[in-house]
Amino acid sequence: MGVGDVSKRILLGRKLRSSQLGETLLPKRIALPVFASDALSSVAYAPDEIFIMLGLAGASAYVWSWKIGIAVAIVMAVVVASYRQNVHAYPSGGGDYEVATVNLGRNAGITVASALLCDYVLTVAVSISSGSQYAAGAIPALVGHEATFATAMVLLLMAMNLRGIRESGTFFAVPTYAFMVAILGMCAYGLFQLVTGTLPDVQSADLDITTAPGYEQPLTTVALMILLARAFSSGCAALTGVEAISNGVPAFRKPKSRNAATTLLLLGMIAITMMLSVIVLADQMGLKYVDPHELERMTLNGQPLPVGYDQDPVIAQIARAVFDHFPAGFYLVVTVTGIILVLAANTAFNGFPVLGSILAEDGLAPRALGSRGDRLAYSNGIVFLALMAIVLIQIFDAETTRLIQLYIVGVFVSFNLSQLGMIRHWTRHLATEQDPATRLSMQRSRVINTIGLSFTAVVLVIVLLTKFMAGAWITLLAMATFFATMKAISRHYDKVAMELAADEDDKILPTRVHAIVLVSKLHKPTLRALAFAKASRPNILEGVYVADDAAKTNRLLQEWDERNFGVPLKVLHSPYREVVRPIVEYAGEIRRSNPRGVVAVYIPEYVVGRWWEQLLHNQTALRLKGRLLFAPGVMVISVPYQLRSSEIAVRRELREEERVHAGDLRRGRIRTRNNRDTQIPR
Amino acid sequence: MGVGDVSKRILLGRKLRSSQLGETLLPKRIALPVFASDALSSVAYAPDEIFIMLGLAGASAYVWSWKIGIAVAIVMAVVVASYRQNVHAYPSGGGDYEVATVNLGRNAGITVASALLCDYVLTVAVSISSGSQYAAGAIPALVGHEATFATAMVLLLMAMNLRGIRESGTFFAVPTYAFMVAILGMCAYGLFQLVTGTLPDVQSADLDITTAPGYEQPLTTVALMILLARAFSSGCAALTGVEAISNGVPAFRKPKSRNAATTLLLLGMIAITMMLSVIVLADQMGLKYVDPHELERMTLNGQPLPVGYDQDPVIAQIARAVFDHFPAGFYLVVTVTGIILVLAANTAFNGFPVLGSILAEDGLAPRALGSRGDRLAYSNGIVFLALMAIVLIQIFDAETTRLIQLYIVGVFVSFNLSQLGMIRHWTRHLATEQDPATRLSMQRSRVINTIGLSFTAVVLVIVLLTKFMAGAWITLLAMATFFATMKAISRHYDKVAMELAADEDDKILPTRVHAIVLVSKLHKPTLRALAFAKASRPNILEGVYVADDAAKTNRLLQEWDERNFGVPLKVLHSPYREVVRPIVEYAGEIRRSNPRGVVAVYIPEYVVGRWWEQLLHNQTALRLKGRLLFAPGVMVISVPYQLRSSEIAVRRELREEERVHAGDLRRGRIRTRNNRDTQIPR
Repeated sequence: MGVGDVSKRILLGRKLRSSQLGETLLPKRIALPVFASDALSSVAYAPDEIFIMLGLAGASAYVWSWKIGIAVAIVMAVVVASYRQNVHAYPSGGGDYEVATVNLGRNAGITVASALLCDYVLTVAVSISSGSQYAAGAIPALVGHEATFATAMVLLLMAMNLRGIRESGTFFAVPTYAFMVAILGMCAYGLFQLVTGTLPDVQSADLDITTAPGYEQPLTTVALMILLARAFSSGCAALTGVEAISNGVPAFRKPKSRNAATTLLLLGMIAITMMLSVIVLADQMGLKYVDPHELERMTLNGQPLPVGYDQDPVIAQIARAVFDHFPAGFYLVVTVTGIILVLAANTAFNGFPVLGSILAEDGLAPRALGSRGDRLAYSNGIVFLALMAIVLIQIFDAETTRLIQLYIVGVFVSFNLSQLGMIRHWTRHLATEQDPATRLSMQRSRVINTIGLSFTAVVLVIVLLTKFMAGAWITLLAMATFFATMKAISRHYDKVAMELAADEDDKILPTRVHAIVLVSKLHKPTLRALAFAKASRPNILEGVYVADDAAKTNRLLQEWDERNFGVPLKVLHSPYREVVRPIVEYAGEIRRSNPRGVVAVYIPEYVVGRWWEQLLHNQTALRLKGRLLFAPGVMVISVPYQLRSSEIAVRRELREEERVHAGDLRRGRIRTRNNRDTQIPR
Repeated sequence: MGVGDVSKRILLGRKLRSSQLGETLLPKRIALPVFASDALSSVAYAPDEIFIMLGLAGASAYVWSWKIGIAVAIVMAVVVASYRQNVHAYPSGGGDYEVATVNLGRNAGITVASALLCDYVLTVAVSISSGSQYAAGAIPALVGHEATFATAMVLLLMAMNLRGIRESGTFFAVPTYAFMVAILGMCAYGLFQLVTGTLPDVQSADLDITTAPGYEQPLTTVALMILLARAFSSGCAALTGVEAISNGVPAFRKPKSRNAATTLLLLGMIAITMMLSVIVLADQMGLKYVDPHELERMTLNGQPLPVGYDQDPVIAQIARAVFDHFPAGFYLVVTVTGIILVLAANTAFNGFPVLGSILAEDGLAPRALGSRGDRLAYSNGIVFLALMAIVLIQIFDAETTRLIQLYIVGVFVSFNLSQLGMIRHWTRHLATEQDPATRLSMQRSRVINTIGLSFTAVVLVIVLLTKFMAGAWITLLAMATFFATMKAISRHYDKVAMELAADEDDKILPTRVHAIVLVSKLHKPTLRALAFAKASRPNILEGVYVADDAAKTNRLLQEWDERNFGVPLKVLHSPYREVVRPIVEYAGEIRRSNPRGVVAVYIPEYVVGRWWEQLLHNQTALRLKGRLLFAPGVMVISVPYQLRSSEIAVRRELREEERVHAGDLRRGRIRTRNNRDTQIPR
């Protein structure tokens, strides 16, 4: 066959593809719930944070609540508009990481990746913490044990993701639409009551809030500005998760970008509506809400609250009042809110391995993360995420308010770099684009992204100023750690690539092959290894036996002669039962006596299926293989002999390959179940 | 080369031996301390147990103490005499396990092995618990924290043994001789004072002991018999460790058996002298001693003891009184006793891997335990031993008295089976032996072993009767578990051996070799794998590339053509970045199309040295190799390419091989440091 004979490069694609992953693309009505849980779930805690911050200056500061709400809504609208540009320009699913890397360079990309990694951890911690507060609102027995409950929930999510959840559109659609219906329904009914003047008060309406130290009335203008800035930056937690769709464009039906942009718009509108409605209702219903750590600042007719009083989250309080005569409504709202928060946390478990595989392709994370189905790497990622989240939950006692301080720094770092990257993107394209209509559209997009950048930059500055000491420094430190690790990995890969780069020396062929077959007994695996070695026709072939016992050695030599293999048997003496060392030294000796040749060590192995069988067999072969890898000019040939029990392992492996991995759905990868030709090879 | 050409079987023994383990044989004066610590250390707790048991009936029962001591001494003399026969008949170091297996069959051997395994765990637990009581006697701050201190000591011993202790004769000789000198000196001085009538009382002499419930005076004869039996069986703890020398005969200088027998005699005499002296002195000095759990049974002039009173061990009390005007003497005695107890525990850490390797050779434990230098298996054994001992220490709160109840069952089970085996041994040999002198000697030995069996059988019955409910059932349960596990492992190996047994079908040679070289990039490892594959001259040779990206694939194809290897490149499509599956399926396909051929898969690997580098490389190759092992007719060839950092691992490996393993000394295996020719192979 000729060297350049391309026609002979048989493309096996068609044959293999049928048993590989199929694509199931998502229509908009399914894509919305798949990508929305993270963004929508923040309505469960963002309004609470606004009220807590404003409440520092007493309930009178609540007059600002809907204005803060509108400010957050405007930022969200701007961010949504900006990301609609992203999904058109970068439909490949790389998201902010790709935008930053392509337009701002590798370091910007790594920064975004670091921010996203922190974000995933915090999404789990915040969502599950908030969820456990809702659970405590509905189940009084959980009050005081929120951190334990949250930890248990994270472990449960981890276990489910390790086990593999068969995700489907329905899996997301039912709870997400239920959440939308429940919250929007509650708000609509509440607003109807407001218009008709029948809106009831929430349970905390009778309470009074003492101002926090340093916020005594009247506030100076500067103090007021700081207060509003803090409330605003906490409210911006509502924006987390908006960027999810930009990572999932490939999962949409065609036209992908347009459908993704439409879904994004829809998501933004729903999120804004929910948030503003909740804030307006809470304000109108006389809500009083303080940091759960400072419950003593609340009083009832001048008296301290009764011991054991617990403050329900805002949505729970509204639901309890609005559905005063319909308790099922209250439980529905609380339940779907809890579920959507768990779904939001699950989003992070899905996104983490996806990001890991992208980083692996770019040499920023262990390569193994890049190939689908590396169970170990994949599991390690999930366990790492869960453990980090649990550490945060334990440190911050599952208090959403304190975790929020860490949360949105990362989000806004990636917002900023992404928008900056998009501006560069359009500028670069405008430099070459000639068509006036396209130029106009690009200029329009650039304006939108510029507005996006300016807004998100302002928010980032406000967040850093107001939250740095309160916890954002932890996030920045973690980001720096991720950044340094990724840089180190990248440098290592570069160094190795340099050392491995092919040059002209490497075409020299070894002159001869000296093969040795390791013999421990004369059983089927040894015979098979001998047969395979013979079939390979080496220049020299010999059996090698490590002897520690004269009687056994003589028996083996006799049997060897009787069997008449036509292959000599070499005996290495090892009076102290060392096996590995004599073989390694013998191989080294052969190699030294003929440096241009190559030594082929045939190792018979028997393959078993159960984990405890692995412990009982091949341990020495394993160690020997590991050791021979370090001997230059030696190649190690494993000749497996499959025992009957090995089929157990093959079946286990096939099950594993068929498993749907977390994140497959949002990448548009679901294995088609029909038309499979997988079988146990024989 | 002719098939039966034995002359070509070059014996590499001489060349290799210089860098392997050397033998350092022990003279008697070193062998005694190496093997004595376990047996002698029991004088630190055995007398205490006799006094505790007798004290149940009040201090008046102490009149029996020296009689019980003599009974124990007689049993010890008989056991020593019996084991002197063993070391002559079985000088290979297999000990009781070998005697039982050879003479009574496999199940008896496994029973002995189970008993010994339990024994090792209990040796650690009892010795360290007793040691922590001595430590608490000298350091009052430790009182009440004995279990924690004992656990810490076990962990320390574990760490030292994992790390590898460079044992030497001195390591054992100095503390063991110091212990002998200190204890025998103390006893001699005390007995001198006794003779001269100047023997002082111990601190507890003024106390009174209330009888325990059920032992009110006067005792019935049956109750007295039971009491004495319990005291006797507790006192038999002094016999533990006597059998150690029978496992260590190969470490002695020639004439091995005779030297071992002499050392054993010496050991027995010293142990008996110590124990009897301590008991007599304690009795004469008015010692009052109760279970530390029942301190309230002691009174001072009819009043309860002051709160916080702690009871020192017997030897500590004697030393405090005898060395009344010489506190250094007291601290010396307590310190060397503590050290000898730690040494005794360390004995178990040495014996455990030795026993493990013997069991592994006989197919009763994972085979890997049998080859010296399997770090993993070896470490697992040490960790297992330590954890089991810690569990016991924690459950029994480091109370020697309660742990003793579990201890001696195992010892006496192996004594019994060993003596029974020896009787069979002599009977078998007498059946063929003609020489009258030898016959006479054999008959004499048989009589000694028969006496040994009858004594140890009586003790075993007494121990079982008096201790079954008090804890011996735990030991029997553990022995049953070990027994069942070893039987299961043995059955599994037998089953596999049957499945692997060679038959005539296995001589059929494969007709052809179809080789594929995995190509991920065109770097040095790939070029080397290609060169090695070419040198092996397979019938078909092709490169195989798994493609997930068209641009990358085209670049590779182009480079492949430019390099002009003379080898075609096959491209397998994998749109979702699966690597393992397409290759496994392709190999299976080749094999199916030519069932008589063999598929050779060449995997280029780069070899790195640091653990974190391992995480970054070859993970996919590792998974692929694991998966291909299950494909019949496929052999997997690892072609390593050593990166510079791999030398770190080679150096680490060499350090590891040079390490002295726990137990080497008592097996006569110490690496000689001179005349080494080890070097990094290049």
